Amino acid sequence: MPSEIDLRSDTVTQPTDPMRQAMASAHVGDAVIDVDPTLDRLEKRSAEILGKAAAIFVPSGSMANQIAVRVHCGMGNGFICEGNSHVYHYEQGAFAALSGLIAQTVFGDGGVLTVDDLRSQIHPEDDHSVRTKLLCIENTHNRWGGRIQPQKEVVAACDWAHGQGVQCHLDGARLWNASVASGATEKELCDPFDSVGVCFSKGLGAPVGSVLAGSESFISEARRCRKLFGGAMRQAGIIAAGALYALENHRERLADDHTHAKQLGDAIEACGSLSLRDGRIDTNMIVFDVDAGFCTAADFQAKLESQGVRCFAIGDQAVRLVTHLDVNTQQIETACGMIQAVAK
Amino acid sequence: MPSEIDLRSDTVTQPTDPMRQAMASAHVGDAVIDVDPTLDRLEKRSAEILGKAAAIFVPSGSMANQIAVRVHCGMGNGFICEGNSHVYHYEQGAFAALSGLIAQTVFGDGGVLTVDDLRSQIHPEDDHSVRTKLLCIENTHNRWGGRIQPQKEVVAACDWAHGQGVQCHLDGARLWNASVASGATEKELCDPFDSVGVCFSKGLGAPVGSVLAGSESFISEARRCRKLFGGAMRQAGIIAAGALYALENHRERLADDHTHAKQLGDAIEACGSLSLRDGRIDTNMIVFDVDAGFCTAADFQAKLESQGVRCFAIGDQAVRLVTHLDVNTQQIETACGMIQAVAK
Amino acid sequence: MPSEIDLRSDTVTQPTDPMRQAMASAHVGDAVIDVDPTLDRLEKRSAEILGKAAAIFVPSGSMANQIAVRVHCGMGNGFICEGNSHVYHYEQGAFAALSGLIAQTVFGDGGVLTVDDLRSQIHPEDDHSVRTKLLCIENTHNRWGGRIQPQKEVVAACDWAHGQGVQCHLDGARLWNASVASGATEKELCDPFDSVGVCFSKGLGAPVGSVLAGSESFISEARRCRKLFGGAMRQAGIIAAGALYALENHRERLADDHTHAKQLGDAIEACGSLSLRDGRIDTNMIVFDVDAGFCTAADFQAKLESQGVRCFAIGDQAVRLVTHLDVNTQQIETACGMIQAVAK
Amino acid sequence: MPSEIDLRSDTVTQPTDPMRQAMASAHVGDAVIDVDPTLDRLEKRSAEILGKAAAIFVPSGSMANQIAVRVHCGMGNGFICEGNSHVYHYEQGAFAALSGLIAQTVFGDGGVLTVDDLRSQIHPEDDHSVRTKLLCIENTHNRWGGRIQPQKEVVAACDWAHGQGVQCHLDGARLWNASVASGATEKELCDPFDSVGVCFSKGLGAPVGSVLAGSESFISEARRCRKLFGGAMRQAGIIAAGALYALENHRERLADDHTHAKQLGDAIEACGSLSLRDGRIDTNMIVFDVDAGFCTAADFQAKLESQGVRCFAIGDQAVRLVTHLDVNTQQIETACGMIQAVAK
Repeated sequence: MPSEIDLRSDTVTQPTDPMRQAMASAHVGDAVIDVDPTLDRLEKRSAEILGKAAAIFVPSGSMANQIAVRVHCGMGNGFICEGNSHVYHYEQGAFAALSGLIAQTVFGDGGVLTVDDLRSQIHPEDDHSVRTKLLCIENTHNRWGGRIQPQKEVVAACDWAHGQGVQCHLDGARLWNASVASGATEKELCDPFDSVGVCFSKGLGAPVGSVLAGSESFISEARRCRKLFGGAMRQAGIIAAGALYALENHRERLADDHTHAKQLGDAIEACGSLSLRDGRIDTNMIVFDVDAGFCTAADFQAKLESQGVRCFAIGDQAVRLVTHLDVNTQQIETACGMIQAVAK
Repeated sequence: MPSEIDLRSDTVTQPTDPMRQAMASAHVGDAVIDVDPTLDRLEKRSAEILGKAAAIFVPSGSMANQIAVRVHCGMGNGFICEGNSHVYHYEQGAFAALSGLIAQTVFGDGGVLTVDDLRSQIHPEDDHSVRTKLLCIENTHNRWGGRIQPQKEVVAACDWAHGQGVQCHLDGARLWNASVASGATEKELCDPFDSVGVCFSKGLGAPVGSVLAGSESFISEARRCRKLFGGAMRQAGIIAAGALYALENHRERLADDHTHAKQLGDAIEACGSLSLRDGRIDTNMIVFDVDAGFCTAADFQAKLESQGVRCFAIGDQAVRLVTHLDVNTQQIETACGMIQAVAK
Repeated sequence: MPSEIDLRSDTVTQPTDPMRQAMASAHVGDAVIDVDPTLDRLEKRSAEILGKAAAIFVPSGSMANQIAVRVHCGMGNGFICEGNSHVYHYEQGAFAALSGLIAQTVFGDGGVLTVDDLRSQIHPEDDHSVRTKLLCIENTHNRWGGRIQPQKEVVAACDWAHGQGVQCHLDGARLWNASVASGATEKELCDPFDSVGVCFSKGLGAPVGSVLAGSESFISEARRCRKLFGGAMRQAGIIAAGALYALENHRERLADDHTHAKQLGDAIEACGSLSLRDGRIDTNMIVFDVDAGFCTAADFQAKLESQGVRCFAIGDQAVRLVTHLDVNTQQIETACGMIQAVAK
Repeated sequence: MPSEIDLRSDTVTQPTDPMRQAMASAHVGDAVIDVDPTLDRLEKRSAEILGKAAAIFVPSGSMANQIAVRVHCGMGNGFICEGNSHVYHYEQGAFAALSGLIAQTVFGDGGVLTVDDLRSQIHPEDDHSVRTKLLCIENTHNRWGGRIQPQKEVVAACDWAHGQGVQCHLDGARLWNASVASGATEKELCDPFDSVGVCFSKGLGAPVGSVLAGSESFISEARRCRKLFGGAMRQAGIIAAGALYALENHRERLADDHTHAKQLGDAIEACGSLSLRDGRIDTNMIVFDVDAGFCTAADFQAKLESQGVRCFAIGDQAVRLVTHLDVNTQQIETACGMIQAVAK
């Protein structure tokens, strides 16, 4: 369906021709027993951009997060995360199922955790209670519609956590969007954290892969843990080449996706039967509610798809749209028109 | 300290003389390779009272709960529990640390979960999401001050859960209190559940032990799991004898503890600087808040202890009292006077 | 069946009258929130006898071993044990099932591990290989028929392990027998080890319980782990009193059990159709093989039981007898006669 | 180092030009929310070749094995594997560390398990013992130098296992070599097994990836487990294209690697100071021992590397060579000469 406009997720992007070319011509090696030179470049360059000492490539953002919680927490301990975070909701509970860890979920206003929210989560040393070892923050926050975490709250939460002897991990699957939209560099956004995971296969448009970054000693244990999880790949330079291309060429253009998202938001706000969640769009995601008197989210999705625009119903009345590099300005205008037509 | 009035917990009770006599003269056997006759009697009698097909004795209420979640859930799955429940808060996260299970915590109003609270916790089959296998309800609810679960809500929640293919476990550590205070039999309170754990070492005053009850096949797996956890004991009939004595002789007298709790509540309500949490006392626990302008909970606890009355500060301003068989009516009157003196 | 002579295991013993009296009159307290004075005395006295800084009481020998491997090893690591050891064979794989640990089994000649056996088990640091953190030795060795570990080999193995940064744990469920039979004190036998578990419910004849001993910091973590496993008991002093009585009164008399075992061994060696395993009896266990041409072990067990002597068939042709405090010299003589009669 | 002859492993191969072309032009999709057409083709074609109903692509052979043991065994159970198998030795104990499973290792003669070896591993149902759920066999056997499992023994072992209610998994990382060398089709070799894992990044020369094949229901759970392990990749068709190319084009040529291995073996046998392990070479691996009087394996490796031929010392005196598609006949002749020169 070439004419389809797919706004379900920024994960549906196809590799571009130059990206394919970069993969086809990558210098590679056996990364398990030697060094793969392209993988090595990607890891070093990622560490540099994120402002950390070292980084490793992993097959998925979930593996990046799950390695982070396992290595930071150790045996039988707990980590704090927001009640709607990806690491808790969308990774099949691997923190417990594979690593025996306890998620201490706290619901933050708009997905944002304040120091006040966190305080009650750290228990005094007592045999009845879990020891808390890690705080996870997600930026941008997926289930809160691509919400950017206010850096002031992030800094306060991480400072407080460190004061309690608790490490901090950033799930930065869409950190690139937060950086472009806020004007802060990735390094600035990562500075309060001990580790960060980022994805190349979402807004950046690479086919596969994520990176986990942190201190030398943390990454050394993470490398061991990647092997444990079955994520060590031989000539991974082929896919690393695509990620490296994305890293160098597709970050700035995320601003276009954000502009597109605002255009969609304007179109939605103009519809009486639709209302933008919280009235705001921070990055490349749009969540809106369909008036219950009009139809259900599933109905709205079906109607819109019949017009060639794909979206995700993410609740009884909630619909999500995501902009990305495979949807251009003209297609956004078409989509705006379709939404308004369907919403009538 | 014979003159001390210990209202910290109903776990501090001492075995009575006839209970000690029952233990000293118990008929015992090797319960691992044979049958211990006293243990066997306790298990059969407990199953009968709780209305289940079978039961096993375990060293603690935590082990009863943790065996239940492990056996019901299986590998890598989730269970729903109230956000302030004992199984989540006070058992060191064993469900994850030992069994790799995910606690899906939901905060209920007053610790009570309604079907509406539960609905969003069951995810459609999807590789991102945890499969939910169990619902745990605690009755009475410890952190909600010995609150009795309204049986109507319990039945509705369990019916709904069973309709979703989700099993139900009752953490009935203080079920005895709920039964005596509500007038419903233990069996009636357990009927909606697939399994139930009860404790003999709390209000019933036995030195050690709990029982987990359920179907024959469930208890068969639980027996295996008790061995796995290191909870199989040889001539356990010695302690089972104490539990059996408590079961037959100390249930009805819980009504006295409830009367005592209400007396303490009245004394507290008469103090301007103290306020009873939710204005209610369901069973043998009293939680009250100390006015921040008066002093902290820790200060209050210290002042009261200096007068010979022990209690637990369970929050910055919250204090807990628990009545039990080692505190008689006269001591309760003394304690009421002490509280009012300290609160002035 | 008062006339039955039960030689299946030393776990079948009944508490004696003075032991029952000690339990009935024990001073107890809530060991979870306070201190139980009898439990405290048992733990301190056990630590003293075993020559360690601290000790904790646990419901079973399996829990003592499983706490030890969990606390020593940490997350995802390995421990070395003999291929026929109790911790590997008879504890339902709890080391993996509860703690995610890898058993590195090595078969030693007669159950004895030499430094040569151990060397290949420690891998150089490599992401493919498990990190080894602990060596477990069992003394006496159950599946090798109560065999005493030669202390010279024990010292060499532990010295070598410590040189590799590997801790050492002694499964001393029947350490009392090894001490009495060898003439070495329990402390001498424990000296090479970082921790030791001992049982009161086997040869010593107490109804329930074991102790795990080690350094202050190890026992502090073990205490936390006991809570995790559900092994923390309130007024555990009742059963601790029985264990304490056994500890002070039943160690020396194990020499009688060893004499009885040798008497049984002599009777067996005199039978043409029976042969003593390895021709030796170290302590209170006897393992012998029934000539395949005569009958199976199961048949032999059945025939002997019909004469009122109980034993365990532990293989197709192997039978085990265990002597203990509930079998006196006259009964041993009777049993010798029965064995010879059946073996004819 | 273009002139270097790398005989360390068949994992060091570089993608060929047509393979790179296949990857660069692959049709791809989001395999997590949709279907990636190339991935889909690879999975279907692999299932067909292996004679199973379904298959999934995973990032590594370790992940294929670890998913298999987790899905087959379930919570807290055991699997039997040969004492030198890859799944036990080289996968960091993930079966226990991630899945809480117990490896029941048995040493087979030459890495081959017979029914007699297996019999004692299945315990009667008993709370002391682990339940065995799976038998794993590795073909060809890596640590036994690429040894082909005799299919007669394989069939007997699997038949026996199935009779015990035990499933069977084949670690076929180098199954391709076993098939080409034995003349049996892959399907024939897989027929006795419930599941099989194969690798594309070893002898077949693809950069990344493995496939796990089995029944529809098994693969459905395996797909869920792949997500849990973090192995689900978006546009994985890029690397699947390389694997697919390898599958269709590089199987038959493994015969060349086997011929080369025999040439190296002949050269080694002609050296007085070297001896071929077991005097046999089944596939593309050669293990030989260096006479201790001559030098150590590490020395031999160093000397050979200084001549431009790379190998792995895998023991104090043992050296391993592996032939593969990046070493041609002329290079093998050169390597033979170098070995003989160094061995003099």
